Amino acid sequence: MSANSDRARLLITCPEKPGIISAVTSVLTDHHANIVKFDQHTTDPQDGVFFMRIEFELDDYEGSYEKLTEDIHVITEEYPMDWHLSSKKKRKRMAIFVSKMDHCLMELIWRWRSNELPVDIPMVISNHADLKDEVESHGIPYHHIPITKETKGQAEQQALELLEGKVDFIVLARYMQILSPNFVSQFPDQIINIHHSFLPAFVGANPYARAFNRGVKLIGATAHFVTNDLDEGPIIHQDVKQVDHRYTVEDLKTSGRHVERSVLAQAVSWQLEDRITVHGNKTIVFT
Amino acid sequence: MSANSDRARLLITCPEKPGIISAVTSVLTDHHANIVKFDQHTTDPQDGVFFMRIEFELDDYEGSYEKLTEDIHVITEEYPMDWHLSSKKKRKRMAIFVSKMDHCLMELIWRWRSNELPVDIPMVISNHADLKDEVESHGIPYHHIPITKETKGQAEQQALELLEGKVDFIVLARYMQILSPNFVSQFPDQIINIHHSFLPAFVGANPYARAFNRGVKLIGATAHFVTNDLDEGPIIHQDVKQVDHRYTVEDLKTSGRHVERSVLAQAVSWQLEDRITVHGNKTIVFT
Amino acid sequence: MSANSDRARLLITCPEKPGIISAVTSVLTDHHANIVKFDQHTTDPQDGVFFMRIEFELDDYEGSYEKLTEDIHVITEEYPMDWHLSSKKKRKRMAIFVSKMDHCLMELIWRWRSNELPVDIPMVISNHADLKDEVESHGIPYHHIPITKETKGQAEQQALELLEGKVDFIVLARYMQILSPNFVSQFPDQIINIHHSFLPAFVGANPYARAFNRGVKLIGATAHFVTNDLDEGPIIHQDVKQVDHRYTVEDLKTSGRHVERSVLAQAVSWQLEDRITVHGNKTIVFT
Amino acid sequence: MSANSDRARLLITCPEKPGIISAVTSVLTDHHANIVKFDQHTTDPQDGVFFMRIEFELDDYEGSYEKLTEDIHVITEEYPMDWHLSSKKKRKRMAIFVSKMDHCLMELIWRWRSNELPVDIPMVISNHADLKDEVESHGIPYHHIPITKETKGQAEQQALELLEGKVDFIVLARYMQILSPNFVSQFPDQIINIHHSFLPAFVGANPYARAFNRGVKLIGATAHFVTNDLDEGPIIHQDVKQVDHRYTVEDLKTSGRHVERSVLAQAVSWQLEDRITVHGNKTIVFT
Repeated sequence: MSANSDRARLLITCPEKPGIISAVTSVLTDHHANIVKFDQHTTDPQDGVFFMRIEFELDDYEGSYEKLTEDIHVITEEYPMDWHLSSKKKRKRMAIFVSKMDHCLMELIWRWRSNELPVDIPMVISNHADLKDEVESHGIPYHHIPITKETKGQAEQQALELLEGKVDFIVLARYMQILSPNFVSQFPDQIINIHHSFLPAFVGANPYARAFNRGVKLIGATAHFVTNDLDEGPIIHQDVKQVDHRYTVEDLKTSGRHVERSVLAQAVSWQLEDRITVHGNKTIVFT
Repeated sequence: MSANSDRARLLITCPEKPGIISAVTSVLTDHHANIVKFDQHTTDPQDGVFFMRIEFELDDYEGSYEKLTEDIHVITEEYPMDWHLSSKKKRKRMAIFVSKMDHCLMELIWRWRSNELPVDIPMVISNHADLKDEVESHGIPYHHIPITKETKGQAEQQALELLEGKVDFIVLARYMQILSPNFVSQFPDQIINIHHSFLPAFVGANPYARAFNRGVKLIGATAHFVTNDLDEGPIIHQDVKQVDHRYTVEDLKTSGRHVERSVLAQAVSWQLEDRITVHGNKTIVFT
Repeated sequence: MSANSDRARLLITCPEKPGIISAVTSVLTDHHANIVKFDQHTTDPQDGVFFMRIEFELDDYEGSYEKLTEDIHVITEEYPMDWHLSSKKKRKRMAIFVSKMDHCLMELIWRWRSNELPVDIPMVISNHADLKDEVESHGIPYHHIPITKETKGQAEQQALELLEGKVDFIVLARYMQILSPNFVSQFPDQIINIHHSFLPAFVGANPYARAFNRGVKLIGATAHFVTNDLDEGPIIHQDVKQVDHRYTVEDLKTSGRHVERSVLAQAVSWQLEDRITVHGNKTIVFT
Repeated sequence: MSANSDRARLLITCPEKPGIISAVTSVLTDHHANIVKFDQHTTDPQDGVFFMRIEFELDDYEGSYEKLTEDIHVITEEYPMDWHLSSKKKRKRMAIFVSKMDHCLMELIWRWRSNELPVDIPMVISNHADLKDEVESHGIPYHHIPITKETKGQAEQQALELLEGKVDFIVLARYMQILSPNFVSQFPDQIINIHHSFLPAFVGANPYARAFNRGVKLIGATAHFVTNDLDEGPIIHQDVKQVDHRYTVEDLKTSGRHVERSVLAQAVSWQLEDRITVHGNKTIVFT
């Protein structure tokens, strides 16, 4: 492979229509692309929605880019599809929002440092100053934007200005503020939250105390996209851990933290590799 | 060990008070009992509730029984405890209630036949006739008691008469009828149900369809004791399985069935070995 | 969809060469096939081996079959591939070999009866008579072929005659005899065995006793294809369960049985849906 | 509870003999100890070995210590037991040995910083300088002791001098050197290693490459005590993760790292709470 070669991913959503796979792969073949991974899903083979993710290698990705996108565009006349093309060489940019708890933040930073998460982190934004030194010690800018009931709109505006043109998606790593509809609308399907329970169990606040009171034998976490329906956004990933009567609320929180960080890190990893497509209130995740 | 030797279990619930462990174990030592397993739990070491399960071997269990229970009774003057003594040789008697789906029923029967569940099954009761031949082929009496809205009270009465003095506990193996408060009150903490979701997610009907619509990435099952608060009884055991966007509602049901049967069989196994204590709306399970 | 419509699966193994996906999907598009599932894998996008599984619907599968296979054959001139086409309507035929332990056998029969395993079971073959009644009660022919050191060759010959033209693959459901190279060579990549440990841990006999002695904290099972290198055949599926110091050898066996039956049933399910391709000593499993 | 109160743990190993539980708990009752957790295990109720772990609260632990240990000593005349008493207030001291890979080290440091691991870390010792800055940034002394074939004895001597009287146990957090019998003998059952496979699978070097070549569907990790039989020491904890044909060796390593760090951190957590007893080549872990 030449130095200009790159690996790219093509994500497609389209009303189901026979022939779409061969139409798209023919374009890639014409460009001498080498398909490395191929996944597809359909909600209904007759008249559902079709989803496709193709990962391919191209010798001169940059040089071919314009013509390739033109050729894909031609197909859209017959197949009215949404499509998104991205390359591995161009790192995504992720902002992290955090409050005081650092476990999810540290997991993301640790995986970023060890190159497990090939991403740029242009900034961390927090409504508290607690984690400033820790974050800055890794060379990541930390913006402390305090929030009170009165200043919420203004604080969000400040955050939006910082983010403007700088990030591709946002991760709420135990950020204990509810984002306004205005803010959320600026990043559709681009804000990943970690919910500290396995939704829809224990929607809302204090899930660990409520899990303790209910006497459940499982605790878990859910990574989901943020929409304006609180805790109702499309679920990306979930996992649980068995617990028993000996667990105090504190023990549940401790165990929960480990589930939270692995679930969130996994969701972010999939986001970086364009593996997630949102369809209505669900996700298709091509793992 | 002599032929008269037996293994017994002593289950105790008591307000927390120092010295209870040595008081109880001294009695057992006086009887030359050999403690094989010992578990305890306290909700609060200062003034909580104390739970204890002791499994012990006794050379002449039957011969010692009267004196042993008297000696335990003496302790209750200082330690006002609820206690329950049972022996391994005396098999518990389990009635199974079932409707049309056979997977939980068959799992219980299979484990019973292979001696994994050392239990007697004096009867299966069903509101349908579908599984009659299958059950009877294993030598288990099958009572078909049809239920309509109008005949419900009468049907329950008929079941109660069949059960009278014949069973120690009841298992609802996907029994699709809601038991009346009157019925439930006859078997406090003695009716085990399998709920086809990981409670409190998807409480109530059609959990698989609702899980599908919500786009969750986990499906699961919950074994719990039946109380008059529907789906709110003490949880005994739960487990889940990861699923993804490719699962249809049917696929979720199929996967769910396997979780249901292992979760229910596990709960029944614990019940047979007196490992479960109910405390309020929770269980202590000494695994 | 018409009554003649069917769902088919095309499994392909081919040296990696650009364009193969579009070549194959174009043929299917020409036949108005509706691709429902598509999976592929490559050992190396440059010069590795390429694997593909396509599940598609066709309005008149039977009527199209001859022309479709001809068209696929044409592609093989440019893409020298091994391919295999099968339809959902044509059930595979599975023989089960068993000795005395019935848990894996019963799990397969239970899933077959509940239509989870859409397969025909023309016969069960055993070196013992123990399970004859049980198997025959489900309407499945049971052949008891005793085996001694001296009669082994003859016994295998007898089995081969019974199997001749009657089965597509064989499942060893805890069959405690080692098949001869001659027998194995008659069913290349068509004999699935359940090994009662997570290979390559505890290769060979008495894995539970050895696991107990080694003090491991996991027990498990492995489903694999049988080759003439004992316990070295391509692994299809594995799973484990956490255990602890309280487990006796008997407890390990009991827990192990549950892992064994779910692992084997899963492997058989994949086999029925043509999801498994063997490549060297490994499997590609398109789940 | 008074300010002097403390929580203590009594670990006992003793030849099985009836009455030991009541003898020990009577001593604790006499001291007005409040038993919070109690676990026991026996290899054989008739003539096996008995293990017990009691966690209890004492109002004036320090003031009672001398008399309490005397009273326990008295029991040992009748019950010839090994026993070990430790208190929660007195933190254990852990040295970490590491080479170049930082994931296990960082997990331990992260859990230490978040108070999940209540331990003192007086030093990190490494045969490489790579992680010096990272470790020192957390205020932990870092000793770089290079090792060559020729200097190995000398290097171990240097390490032993640094450790002398400073640590209670050692964790090998992916330390890529084999310790000499002399070194190991100084810390019997006090050196915890993380093995990058689920022993006894893939004993020795390069487990991920070997797992890849064998085509296994599970990768895992084992935490065990170090003995002079390489990779044969008593297993403390194991866990696995399902993998499939799509995993490259690198992917296996990445997934493995996450299993390694959680398995090792769990083992260390148990060690800190005196939950682990070694018996022959096995561990009893009272979780």
